[in-house]
Amino acid sequence: MNTELLTTVMKNPSLFLAGPGTARIQDRPVPTISDPHDVIVRVCFVGVCGSDVRRGDAVHFWKHGGIQTPVSDPLVMGHEASGTICAIGSAVTSVKVGDRVAIEPGHPCRRCTACKAGSYNLCPDIKFASAPPDTHGLLTKFWKAPEDFVYKVSDETGLDEEVLVEPLSVAVHTSRLAGIRPGDTVVIIGSGTIGLLSGAVARIFGAHRVILLDIAGEKLRFAAEYLGAETRLLDMEASPEESSEAVLSQFDLHDRVDVVIEASGAEASVQLGIYLLRLGGSYVQTGVGKPKLSIPMLALSEKELRVRGCFRYGAGDFALAVQLLDRRMVDLKPLISSVTPFERAPEAWDKTGRGEGIKNLVQGVLD
Amino acid sequence: MNTELLTTVMKNPSLFLAGPGTARIQDRPVPTISDPHDVIVRVCFVGVCGSDVRRGDAVHFWKHGGIQTPVSDPLVMGHEASGTICAIGSAVTSVKVGDRVAIEPGHPCRRCTACKAGSYNLCPDIKFASAPPDTHGLLTKFWKAPEDFVYKVSDETGLDEEVLVEPLSVAVHTSRLAGIRPGDTVVIIGSGTIGLLSGAVARIFGAHRVILLDIAGEKLRFAAEYLGAETRLLDMEASPEESSEAVLSQFDLHDRVDVVIEASGAEASVQLGIYLLRLGGSYVQTGVGKPKLSIPMLALSEKELRVRGCFRYGAGDFALAVQLLDRRMVDLKPLISSVTPFERAPEAWDKTGRGEGIKNLVQGVLD
Amino acid sequence: MNTELLTTVMKNPSLFLAGPGTARIQDRPVPTISDPHDVIVRVCFVGVCGSDVRRGDAVHFWKHGGIQTPVSDPLVMGHEASGTICAIGSAVTSVKVGDRVAIEPGHPCRRCTACKAGSYNLCPDIKFASAPPDTHGLLTKFWKAPEDFVYKVSDETGLDEEVLVEPLSVAVHTSRLAGIRPGDTVVIIGSGTIGLLSGAVARIFGAHRVILLDIAGEKLRFAAEYLGAETRLLDMEASPEESSEAVLSQFDLHDRVDVVIEASGAEASVQLGIYLLRLGGSYVQTGVGKPKLSIPMLALSEKELRVRGCFRYGAGDFALAVQLLDRRMVDLKPLISSVTPFERAPEAWDKTGRGEGIKNLVQGVLD
Amino acid sequence: MNTELLTTVMKNPSLFLAGPGTARIQDRPVPTISDPHDVIVRVCFVGVCGSDVRRGDAVHFWKHGGIQTPVSDPLVMGHEASGTICAIGSAVTSVKVGDRVAIEPGHPCRRCTACKAGSYNLCPDIKFASAPPDTHGLLTKFWKAPEDFVYKVSDETGLDEEVLVEPLSVAVHTSRLAGIRPGDTVVIIGSGTIGLLSGAVARIFGAHRVILLDIAGEKLRFAAEYLGAETRLLDMEASPEESSEAVLSQFDLHDRVDVVIEASGAEASVQLGIYLLRLGGSYVQTGVGKPKLSIPMLALSEKELRVRGCFRYGAGDFALAVQLLDRRMVDLKPLISSVTPFERAPEAWDKTGRGEGIKNLVQGVLD
Repeated sequence: MNTELLTTVMKNPSLFLAGPGTARIQDRPVPTISDPHDVIVRVCFVGVCGSDVRRGDAVHFWKHGGIQTPVSDPLVMGHEASGTICAIGSAVTSVKVGDRVAIEPGHPCRRCTACKAGSYNLCPDIKFASAPPDTHGLLTKFWKAPEDFVYKVSDETGLDEEVLVEPLSVAVHTSRLAGIRPGDTVVIIGSGTIGLLSGAVARIFGAHRVILLDIAGEKLRFAAEYLGAETRLLDMEASPEESSEAVLSQFDLHDRVDVVIEASGAEASVQLGIYLLRLGGSYVQTGVGKPKLSIPMLALSEKELRVRGCFRYGAGDFALAVQLLDRRMVDLKPLISSVTPFERAPEAWDKTGRGEGIKNLVQGVLD
Repeated sequence: MNTELLTTVMKNPSLFLAGPGTARIQDRPVPTISDPHDVIVRVCFVGVCGSDVRRGDAVHFWKHGGIQTPVSDPLVMGHEASGTICAIGSAVTSVKVGDRVAIEPGHPCRRCTACKAGSYNLCPDIKFASAPPDTHGLLTKFWKAPEDFVYKVSDETGLDEEVLVEPLSVAVHTSRLAGIRPGDTVVIIGSGTIGLLSGAVARIFGAHRVILLDIAGEKLRFAAEYLGAETRLLDMEASPEESSEAVLSQFDLHDRVDVVIEASGAEASVQLGIYLLRLGGSYVQTGVGKPKLSIPMLALSEKELRVRGCFRYGAGDFALAVQLLDRRMVDLKPLISSVTPFERAPEAWDKTGRGEGIKNLVQGVLD
Repeated sequence: MNTELLTTVMKNPSLFLAGPGTARIQDRPVPTISDPHDVIVRVCFVGVCGSDVRRGDAVHFWKHGGIQTPVSDPLVMGHEASGTICAIGSAVTSVKVGDRVAIEPGHPCRRCTACKAGSYNLCPDIKFASAPPDTHGLLTKFWKAPEDFVYKVSDETGLDEEVLVEPLSVAVHTSRLAGIRPGDTVVIIGSGTIGLLSGAVARIFGAHRVILLDIAGEKLRFAAEYLGAETRLLDMEASPEESSEAVLSQFDLHDRVDVVIEASGAEASVQLGIYLLRLGGSYVQTGVGKPKLSIPMLALSEKELRVRGCFRYGAGDFALAVQLLDRRMVDLKPLISSVTPFERAPEAWDKTGRGEGIKNLVQGVLD
Repeated sequence: MNTELLTTVMKNPSLFLAGPGTARIQDRPVPTISDPHDVIVRVCFVGVCGSDVRRGDAVHFWKHGGIQTPVSDPLVMGHEASGTICAIGSAVTSVKVGDRVAIEPGHPCRRCTACKAGSYNLCPDIKFASAPPDTHGLLTKFWKAPEDFVYKVSDETGLDEEVLVEPLSVAVHTSRLAGIRPGDTVVIIGSGTIGLLSGAVARIFGAHRVILLDIAGEKLRFAAEYLGAETRLLDMEASPEESSEAVLSQFDLHDRVDVVIEASGAEASVQLGIYLLRLGGSYVQTGVGKPKLSIPMLALSEKELRVRGCFRYGAGDFALAVQLLDRRMVDLKPLISSVTPFERAPEAWDKTGRGEGIKNLVQGVLD
């Protein structure tokens, strides 16, 4: 892509996923303020999420389409982003032009039962960035949002780090649903971005022990250093029952695991999580896997477990995540693996698709 | 069994399950008060539960043994019972000799973390009547219990009805875990004793709509009359997805099912329950089925469901169940299908094993 | 007021409180739809609330002004109302022209932390009907509202009854904050509209015993008949400690009062409520009295009570109240004491000010 | 007191409060194990609590007696203590002879509704050390307890520090009742032992800002250093309304105070706390003051505050407090002001009565 095109010809260059493995930059109209509470953000950094790649790469997208809905028309990707305010509506009071912001990418209807009851993440009419079929995402130059879905951030924090507020919000939401309390022992299965951040947040929620499990030794070594957490490499040949016994025995956890956060989505991990928990323990499913899984329902029932699905993030999660970063209660810098210029964004997808790095960023359109 | 044996020779005749399909009445020592808070109850009626039969009949027991543990040594069966107080310890104040009582059959340790935190049903050391290997049950003449595990009942209520306080407590516990709130729409899958009573209790918790589903038409007809509930016969040929669509459509329930109580244990029913629920809905598993089941985990996760295992009953459940019966807020009389004399108790098991009746009782040893 | 004026000359006749004891009907512009989710309601009935009278009558308003803010400019009164839909915005789907509706009179901002967290009654920017200084109320011919703040009601229920959905929502909110659970014993102090309706709702939430206390014998006799509740006339000469002993003794309530709903606002009643509760009991303050009161804080603390302020109603309360009425789970007809034509509305205020009747209604402007 | 008497003549020397300002050491029978779950502890350190002094000194005790009940017969004082296990019952598994333990001083009945529901601190029959009229305390050589009310502690922690687990448990309980969540802003009024420890625990529960208020400058300076907390000296001449405005303004807290922990018991502080809170905020009363206080009930009600009494500590609190200390998440060493030999224990009371030091300890009887 000729850079001149981006900066002089196009008004609002945006990266569309046009079909399996096919992306192109096209212009779109610059958004204008329609509601007095709207703001326009100039996007600075966008993160690549595994769910983008599942839609963008050859394997998943060509064969299965999106998580819920196949992408049909070209769609602007991206839902993890930061930027600066470049215009505000007449009623806006919480930010001003020039403010640096983290961007919450989903805008709920505010009218439905879920919205009014405090669960706007369950709004059936939420407009979530890059959700098929027609809600374009943040790999664009200018983005419109209601003022309460952007968050002014500290001058001391880089806007590259603020991109990670989005997955950090997922981890905050997960810890809230899990009901982590001071003193708890928390086991996290899967040490990708969400697993790592869930470990960091579990600590902030007061967990005394945080133990990460994965089948990938390299990721675990990173986790051990990043979190200072206990870790164990899972044996892919072992049954979930055997893995459970091995984990409980290694860490002396029998009847002590208060919370399991499943962040891999694998069937064996789900089973392992249920076996690990103490009577009355709490399990949260944040990893996305096959639509149907075999689980040990009898154990779930007889142990009277609390199992909770977990979908994105809701009231207060993003605001807390911004605070955790800006107060340096969690360090997100080590998770940034690369920054790719906007015009070469698909390279960042490819990296993520190949499992390179933890969080690959795309830089916003430069002037 | 010669009745004279029971009344003159034996001191504390008790019905032992000696092996698959083999029961015999034998004497046991009459219990004596060891703790000043103990009471001795003369057992009047004992209910037969499906779980007794699974242990006592040819099919299940011979092949699989008990739910968790095979029965090895002969064990006195029975965990649903009522009686009259015939002796009390020196510190007992809540009942006196002659009082008619409902009997809660599990005695927790009172010392462990679960007991002290208000979840004594999750006490790992609970002594539950007729639990293998060595906690004998209530098909006996005299039974010892701590005074706080017997409940004085109304003079207006029959002791035969009071037997059903035990499954009613399961229904109370289920409704509590489900978090049923006034105005809720509740779907119950499975219309056995627990399903029926869960429907009655859901109403008392304020549910506006209670809908029962089953594959057995006769049971549903009883449920419709007993509860005045909406019912639907499930098509065994249909997939859970198809059944879900059919149920939602018939009752105009799309995104309106707040709570599902699964009381059958069947895999298809578990799947159906998860499909039926609205975003953020609450699912409780009270039916016991295969150890592992395939469930739609992706739907559970994206709908952010609350799933709860459910094990027996705990703090306050039995006391509330007694109140519901004694205040006539639930009518248990129609659920009593037969009363069998003590010396022919195995006939009641056989009836239950053949699916005859809803609740078959065994009469206590007569003088 | 000449009726012809109302029907032919004025477009949107509205009853303004112009100053202490001074009301006049004046025209206002007919509201127009500005947001596609707006609806216009033709108001049919409006209820008179004690808080209207406190602002409109000689004693309270002249001396103290409104509860929080003195009324300065003339203000249209009325916040309890029902009506029919006469226009809808282009995006409205939940109601259509001609639908009969109950009207929720407060419109929150939907953007603040409280709104998004599920507590829109605590929105600092809520526009609540007839709240000084500038949010006009429902004693008007045409009223504009977002579609999600009107509730389609049953054809079988009178629009006069639907007016009482507003105080019924207060009672629903109160019972929710009190955490009333099946089996609870609930004492309600004060038997005005809110006290009565709280009694009715407490039953629906499963309370086994509901006991009403008041210093007015006539109101208690009505309560006893209306609710079938236990009642006791409080002795105004007795200290709160003495009254507490008398109540506990009369009803055998020692350590059994789970919930107190204080619906009078009187200092002696607040004290009484705290004395009555069992250890760990729950107290909700819904009555409005003096800004400062002396309370037994040491007892509150040593009994580890849960005390909750209670402000209007929030997510789901109005919807549930409509359902309770339309399903005939509560009977509001007996509470309607009079219906006054719109042009003589101040007479209804006077009646309420003199303590006549329970709920006095004003009829909407007729054609 | 002649030391020889303590070590050779007396079997179980114990410090009795015999009357106002009158203490004496007397012998008592050495306790023996009666229940197989009992243990005997050799007491090593005992802390002096303000509530001991209120009973032991001239002013309070002579005039008012104990908090609830006047002390009549001589009573052994002391309820904060640590020790070593010197004998165990036959069923004890959690500790062994020689183990160093923190001692939880209240033993509930385990049978009542409160005990079984998870609120054993509200057990009406709890036997709490040094509670009049007849439960002797821990200023004794040998103390009997059920094994689940002693807690094995880390070898790295001094038994003098372990004494402070008791007030730390109060702080844990307080933070739990307050529902402190990560990100909260917490204001604590009163900077005595409980106020300080509540500040430390609030941090562990995730509070982002902890602000301490007091009228004593020296205590605040200690608090500022000990906690690294923000502090403000309250002006005793100012009204609570004025103090509230000053605090909100100084710390930019308007509508941001999520939690107030009142740890002084003073009427002005209680009022201040209620004024400071945001809409929907949470207030916990842990300080003990006059039986009746004037509070701004209207503000409490219109802000829909959650107010909670707070009594001692319950399920899990002591265990968590031990963990917090042994994991060095809270530093208790700086709070220990003095250690007085057993035979001169009243001197430690005098010190505490004069407000000297933060926590004064009494050493257990030496051999």
